[in-house]
Amino acid sequence: VTTVTIVGVGLIGGSFALALRKAGFDGRILGVSSPTTISRAAELGVIDAGLPLAEAVPQSDVVYLAQPISRILETLAVLKELAPSKALITDVGSTKAAIMSSAEGLRFVGGHPMAGKESRGVDSAEANLFRGRPYVLTSHEPWLVEWIQKIGARLVILDPVEHDRLVALTSHLPQLISTALACSIAGEPAAARVAGPAALDLTRLALSPYEIWRDIFATNAAQIDVALDAFIGRLEQLKRMLRNPAIESEFDHAAMAARSLRERS
Amino acid sequence: VTTVTIVGVGLIGGSFALALRKAGFDGRILGVSSPTTISRAAELGVIDAGLPLAEAVPQSDVVYLAQPISRILETLAVLKELAPSKALITDVGSTKAAIMSSAEGLRFVGGHPMAGKESRGVDSAEANLFRGRPYVLTSHEPWLVEWIQKIGARLVILDPVEHDRLVALTSHLPQLISTALACSIAGEPAAARVAGPAALDLTRLALSPYEIWRDIFATNAAQIDVALDAFIGRLEQLKRMLRNPAIESEFDHAAMAARSLRERS
Repeated sequence: VTTVTIVGVGLIGGSFALALRKAGFDGRILGVSSPTTISRAAELGVIDAGLPLAEAVPQSDVVYLAQPISRILETLAVLKELAPSKALITDVGSTKAAIMSSAEGLRFVGGHPMAGKESRGVDSAEANLFRGRPYVLTSHEPWLVEWIQKIGARLVILDPVEHDRLVALTSHLPQLISTALACSIAGEPAAARVAGPAALDLTRLALSPYEIWRDIFATNAAQIDVALDAFIGRLEQLKRMLRNPAIESEFDHAAMAARSLRERS
Repeated sequence: VTTVTIVGVGLIGGSFALALRKAGFDGRILGVSSPTTISRAAELGVIDAGLPLAEAVPQSDVVYLAQPISRILETLAVLKELAPSKALITDVGSTKAAIMSSAEGLRFVGGHPMAGKESRGVDSAEANLFRGRPYVLTSHEPWLVEWIQKIGARLVILDPVEHDRLVALTSHLPQLISTALACSIAGEPAAARVAGPAALDLTRLALSPYEIWRDIFATNAAQIDVALDAFIGRLEQLKRMLRNPAIESEFDHAAMAARSLRERS
């Protein structure tokens, strides 16, 4: 691999470029982004040069789609219309099954680096963003596996549908819970007077902008439905057990699970 | 007020004693607790002396019940059987309606200081524990109002039933949500591989020991039922809206509520 093209040189795309460099990648890194972003990314030394997609792809060994899900889907459609290329294509979208379907016919491996921070854009990019964080691939592609490990991420290989089922539970469901709780509390203006750390903890995710969720709901609603139903079932079970001493074993079980999550991460 | 008796000289009771001293209270502070706690509390300068409840109460102007809810209910029953005293009685229980009913016939004002920390016991007590935190009283009792403000807490006057309704929403519901989510994630061993900050945030409360929840469920189950039902209703509404662009307004509404909670606290 001598040329990698980053499509969407923002926080994730820019950080991947910086991480590759820091880990010793000595090929060329091209960027496909808006003119403003390209000039800023070049200035910051994140990319070597900027090019339009149709010019970059034929020169590339790897094309890294670091865009929002809906833009990844659009780019995949464009890639299919370009002349066939030898390039390995990968992406960073938070859902995988819909993207995998749209990539049929391309040399594509889905990816989901589970990293981020509050600020966005290439100015926030950093070489260590992926360090210690899970990085999901939908299959064991040698070049990607090698560099994901070199940049310090924790490689997780998952089938796309299984990925979507698991993130529905660990990421999409928590978001909806937090949003629903914030709405419930908003319905009781006096509640803010007695809200303590518990309410603050559980409403932090509700601060997330809807923007990224639009695409996630558009591409993972069926799995989210399943996770929501299972969770509502659990809550109803706890409700039935409120006056039953056996609820203690649910608390013990939950505490053990919460501890084990912390040991793994 | 020249003598205050702290019943249960642990984190909260000990911190209230230290906070009173720091704020300039120059009367006597007695403690009612186990012999080990009394000797430790005296050694730490938290109390002036330890006495059995029946000896402390007749000498007291204020009796401060800083015990678990079930123990507060027991102490109230004992206080009713002792010779009538002039003492103002207050408590720190996390639910108020059941305690208020048990205190009928006594000179009682319910309290709920919304402060705490991970560690417990008199060794963890500190004069600043209540600073900036809400301190609920069920009525405007002059001595308590004065000292709650002097120790730097944020006074909130609430009717006991209203208090229980609001904490069901801001504290008891978040606990059950966190416990239910941790149980859901525990049911999917592979989920831990992709669990990120969202899952960690929302399962932190699930680490809480059941011990304190037993008494809360025993004394506030009806209000928790209502909060759970309303929350499940919100989740079901979000579920129906997953494929509907109008869900964006729910996200905006939730984000506004989450921000406003943070401004107030």
